Amino acid sequence: MIKVGVLGATGAVGQRFVQLLADHPWFDLVTLAASERSAGKKYGDVVNWKLDAPFPEKVRNIRVTPTTVKGTKGVELVFSALPAEIAGEVEDDFSRAGVAVCSNARSHRMEPDIPLVIPEVNPDHLGLIDVQRDAGRDGFIVTNPNCSTIMLCVALEPLRGLGFRDVRVATMQAISGAGFSGVAAMDIYDNIVPYIGQEEEKMETETLKIMGTLRGGKVKDAPFTVSASCHRVPVIDGHTLAIWLDTKASVEEVKEAFRKYKPPFKGLPTQPEKSVQLFEEENRPQPRLDRMRGGGMTVSIGRVRPGLRFIALGHNTIRGAAGASVMNAELIRTRKYL
Amino acid sequence: MIKVGVLGATGAVGQRFVQLLADHPWFDLVTLAASERSAGKKYGDVVNWKLDAPFPEKVRNIRVTPTTVKGTKGVELVFSALPAEIAGEVEDDFSRAGVAVCSNARSHRMEPDIPLVIPEVNPDHLGLIDVQRDAGRDGFIVTNPNCSTIMLCVALEPLRGLGFRDVRVATMQAISGAGFSGVAAMDIYDNIVPYIGQEEEKMETETLKIMGTLRGGKVKDAPFTVSASCHRVPVIDGHTLAIWLDTKASVEEVKEAFRKYKPPFKGLPTQPEKSVQLFEEENRPQPRLDRMRGGGMTVSIGRVRPGLRFIALGHNTIRGAAGASVMNAELIRTRKYL
Amino acid sequence: MIKVGVLGATGAVGQRFVQLLADHPWFDLVTLAASERSAGKKYGDVVNWKLDAPFPEKVRNIRVTPTTVKGTKGVELVFSALPAEIAGEVEDDFSRAGVAVCSNARSHRMEPDIPLVIPEVNPDHLGLIDVQRDAGRDGFIVTNPNCSTIMLCVALEPLRGLGFRDVRVATMQAISGAGFSGVAAMDIYDNIVPYIGQEEEKMETETLKIMGTLRGGKVKDAPFTVSASCHRVPVIDGHTLAIWLDTKASVEEVKEAFRKYKPPFKGLPTQPEKSVQLFEEENRPQPRLDRMRGGGMTVSIGRVRPGLRFIALGHNTIRGAAGASVMNAELIRTRKYL
Amino acid sequence: MIKVGVLGATGAVGQRFVQLLADHPWFDLVTLAASERSAGKKYGDVVNWKLDAPFPEKVRNIRVTPTTVKGTKGVELVFSALPAEIAGEVEDDFSRAGVAVCSNARSHRMEPDIPLVIPEVNPDHLGLIDVQRDAGRDGFIVTNPNCSTIMLCVALEPLRGLGFRDVRVATMQAISGAGFSGVAAMDIYDNIVPYIGQEEEKMETETLKIMGTLRGGKVKDAPFTVSASCHRVPVIDGHTLAIWLDTKASVEEVKEAFRKYKPPFKGLPTQPEKSVQLFEEENRPQPRLDRMRGGGMTVSIGRVRPGLRFIALGHNTIRGAAGASVMNAELIRTRKYL
Repeated sequence: MIKVGVLGATGAVGQRFVQLLADHPWFDLVTLAASERSAGKKYGDVVNWKLDAPFPEKVRNIRVTPTTVKGTKGVELVFSALPAEIAGEVEDDFSRAGVAVCSNARSHRMEPDIPLVIPEVNPDHLGLIDVQRDAGRDGFIVTNPNCSTIMLCVALEPLRGLGFRDVRVATMQAISGAGFSGVAAMDIYDNIVPYIGQEEEKMETETLKIMGTLRGGKVKDAPFTVSASCHRVPVIDGHTLAIWLDTKASVEEVKEAFRKYKPPFKGLPTQPEKSVQLFEEENRPQPRLDRMRGGGMTVSIGRVRPGLRFIALGHNTIRGAAGASVMNAELIRTRKYL
Repeated sequence: MIKVGVLGATGAVGQRFVQLLADHPWFDLVTLAASERSAGKKYGDVVNWKLDAPFPEKVRNIRVTPTTVKGTKGVELVFSALPAEIAGEVEDDFSRAGVAVCSNARSHRMEPDIPLVIPEVNPDHLGLIDVQRDAGRDGFIVTNPNCSTIMLCVALEPLRGLGFRDVRVATMQAISGAGFSGVAAMDIYDNIVPYIGQEEEKMETETLKIMGTLRGGKVKDAPFTVSASCHRVPVIDGHTLAIWLDTKASVEEVKEAFRKYKPPFKGLPTQPEKSVQLFEEENRPQPRLDRMRGGGMTVSIGRVRPGLRFIALGHNTIRGAAGASVMNAELIRTRKYL
Repeated sequence: MIKVGVLGATGAVGQRFVQLLADHPWFDLVTLAASERSAGKKYGDVVNWKLDAPFPEKVRNIRVTPTTVKGTKGVELVFSALPAEIAGEVEDDFSRAGVAVCSNARSHRMEPDIPLVIPEVNPDHLGLIDVQRDAGRDGFIVTNPNCSTIMLCVALEPLRGLGFRDVRVATMQAISGAGFSGVAAMDIYDNIVPYIGQEEEKMETETLKIMGTLRGGKVKDAPFTVSASCHRVPVIDGHTLAIWLDTKASVEEVKEAFRKYKPPFKGLPTQPEKSVQLFEEENRPQPRLDRMRGGGMTVSIGRVRPGLRFIALGHNTIRGAAGASVMNAELIRTRKYL
Repeated sequence: MIKVGVLGATGAVGQRFVQLLADHPWFDLVTLAASERSAGKKYGDVVNWKLDAPFPEKVRNIRVTPTTVKGTKGVELVFSALPAEIAGEVEDDFSRAGVAVCSNARSHRMEPDIPLVIPEVNPDHLGLIDVQRDAGRDGFIVTNPNCSTIMLCVALEPLRGLGFRDVRVATMQAISGAGFSGVAAMDIYDNIVPYIGQEEEKMETETLKIMGTLRGGKVKDAPFTVSASCHRVPVIDGHTLAIWLDTKASVEEVKEAFRKYKPPFKGLPTQPEKSVQLFEEENRPQPRLDRMRGGGMTVSIGRVRPGLRFIALGHNTIRGAAGASVMNAELIRTRKYL
């Protein structure tokens, strides 16, 4: 068992980390770090648990530590659910102090020697860990992409062999993506907000890095473009994407690619039975019915039509955030970086 | 004052017709037709008024008539909010009996000699009324498009001069578009349904007819393609569209086209001050805040970005249904067909 | 293992029955009965599964049978999720044919020789099964109360010893209580409907029977009154009740009664760890956060204040319907009636 | 025309004040005060207008002033939508500087010489203005009650003559009652929060003052009790109350009292045609359909049943806040205090 900690353990993503790690077979959750205000108190006393999954009793009495290397001594790996404003520096500190960092924050994602990884899509990008080590870090940082980007990339991966160029994607994103208090009820009830700060830029740049090619210690961007239109909708969990591809592949070829897709590894604890699940029903997938497939880690696909158009859907705080980071850590361990 | 009636006066679109016509300066609402069950009773006693606008007291005591030519004698013009299953035949009957029909139903929309009209977009298509008359109808039928199609066409009209080819559009459509009982709460609450029956087909075919060219008594389809992905979202009123265009025009040229756009007529009672309104704010338009602009008849535009992408939004049961039909009737009258 | 069936297996409560019985340790779900239309087809092909819990694969290929004694041969016990219009007669048929019936329908609830049972509240009322048998039924019928009534009674049971007279209760009831298509989205979104057909009457009469005394084969109503005001609110699952009691007991005595309450039996598979759970937080219980406590079988209590007022909350289709019926069947078995 | 200002003009209640005053026949809205940050800028540039009513263009260019007596020179009357934390002191300053203050804040409501007024209920309490003047204030302060309290009192006023003692009331309160950002979407979507800070206390104490008797410069509390249970529900606007009264009056007597009720004055511009409107339909009133009756100033009543129980509903930011204050000011003017 590897001793692990969560940085930013009381927020929306932080709670998902705690939920996913409380009973993890490989990782022993020993450290929960949060703001100064909470440090020293019991996690159960400071967390305002808002997940519909029950509170994991075994972490109730863990004393919250400050978000510093010193404060979290003894852990080999930390999961970062820190806000971007502080994640950059704190994650740097940890990685330089010899700790492995799996981060959900955007701060380091686009740095050349930091891998931006989705296990099914670019496991080989973990090779950048060696680049980091060569540059003198004792530990390392591995990031996972923005939530919408993950759904898009998991949906595109099975289609790589078919060839496609321009990607257009309209997202309908859940409220939880903005954290517990990020969206006021008055702003989203009976409403849509056709804007999410930096979301379109993230989808357009992160996707190219993730689906790019690692060679000679550098990632070369993937040779297609992404044009995104991002919208917040009144749904609690689950991002829905309407995707168009410029491709010569037929509807049946695309469906077959989804059906026969298998990820290049097996047996990661957080890995769902199916990374992508294809629906033939004309009105699926739907967030309330399908977001929890595969424990929240499956990306559901539906309505493949000429155009070439289809729908992709995934759980934004599990597959799109905490679960993504945990599965990255599992992959890292099987690749012997831990 | 022209004596008018509403067919299907108790449903969601029917009630909007009643609301818009109760105090109309040109049309005198004298007849309300509904199903057999209601015929003979007072409208105020049979209608289950569910609009947030107050019930127009002046129609309370109108006796509901059956949906037949005989039953509605004395009206020169009827507005049809009939379901498609019966609209085709009923509207035919009325038009052959010398009554003008302005229909929101889809039944006749794609017939070659029936105009499918949005006043700002193709007022000249009313010329097909002459074709109908030549073919022996005493009255005539004029249809308005499907709700989402209307928002799309009003948004595209100002850009005709800039040139564009492929149009991709992802819709986020309100619950009221399916009528008062068309969507069960359990199906849409905390959810999205990525499918609306025949909606994508309607947007893809109707748009080309509307924006097509009338010559020699025939409409030639517009020379571009539309690819739609339609989704039901938990919003009461107001359809939001994310639109991509293949165009060489710049963001600024597109914005300028929206800003300077003026419809080719003035003074229709239902006509809004602005047919399209351009927002510069990064998070607008939003359905709850913007659907009632221009009395529900303005199409709001926002987030014009390279790509070329933008957002369009309009009230689906006013601009997208009853208001569309009423404004068509107003246009018809100014063009002396009534 | 006792062979069991579900009548009305495709509806909202029927699906919950299937979910709860698919892996039940005592009951072997072999029969799924539904309307004529579905009979003969595979359950997986006819059910429109709408629960957020995953579809239980093991029942996918069960052939649906008609809702008749003949059609469901071989089962010892049926769970009825039938609509009240047909439940009365069908359940009678089954019970006279020697089958045990655990019914969620209201049809037989108030009949003098039919027990209306909540395990924690009136397990002794199962004695009415003997009365039924004496009257010549080969099988028997046991009913569970209306959903809101169950929450109320489970909340009142721990307070019996403290004494109370008049009960006033305002309910805020979830959409799922009306079935999958019982409430139109247009009727409940951004809205409250302050009326649910027969709900107040059910709460006011059923409660007195359940908390009444069985003596000499007859139930004598409990000696207090219930006055209910029932409201539908835009919540998917979970009924919330604001309750006032006329009692001399103090807030602390009431809290203590909730804390120390233990049901008069142990070890039923569907029984939650705690039948009632008392919250001290000032803003709990809340439906989205607390409805699934104890697998949906715990009734959560909070905000005990002078007056004497408190809040009770439970999952309406689990504790308030299918789970109630299954736990009744478990109790029946331990009492050797099966 | 009396020159007036709004303090706290950018918030949820402040915007309602601006909406109601922009075209007021007696009051000339000349001053809009807000936080330091906004002072000096144009109102149209600093306000984030979120009402579904259109922005009143005539106030767009008013320069926002600081919330000080000095900053708002020239106004005879100010409406206060200030948060309670600062309202106490600021309103005191204004009233001592000779300005009339109509306040929606809770700070001064329960002070012995400050009238807490609902025009229909206790117009004579304005007599306390003389007490304030005798005590040396140049101006005066008049407050309106908390939103839920207003609905309750307007509903009880017609029943005074029938006699009642204990009042129990369960509220289902809209999101807008907490201001634009007071409730996070994650906290209320698919949920109910059975607690609103200080709300129950306000209803229980304010009601007794409002319905109390002014004699010898002092208000004696009304001789009954109120016991409230307050709940936040996912509704945008409109508070719904389920009320129980201890009364000997019959259902018909209560209905008749509502039907024949007339307020003790006429002709106030903000006064609705009917202060209370009785529904006979079994499922009314409903917030989405009835909150805007009488321009948002009518309190709708329904479901009068034995018990004695009924439902009351009103618009919380109009009748329950800004409209309440404006109508108070109108009453004050007709009573010659202005």
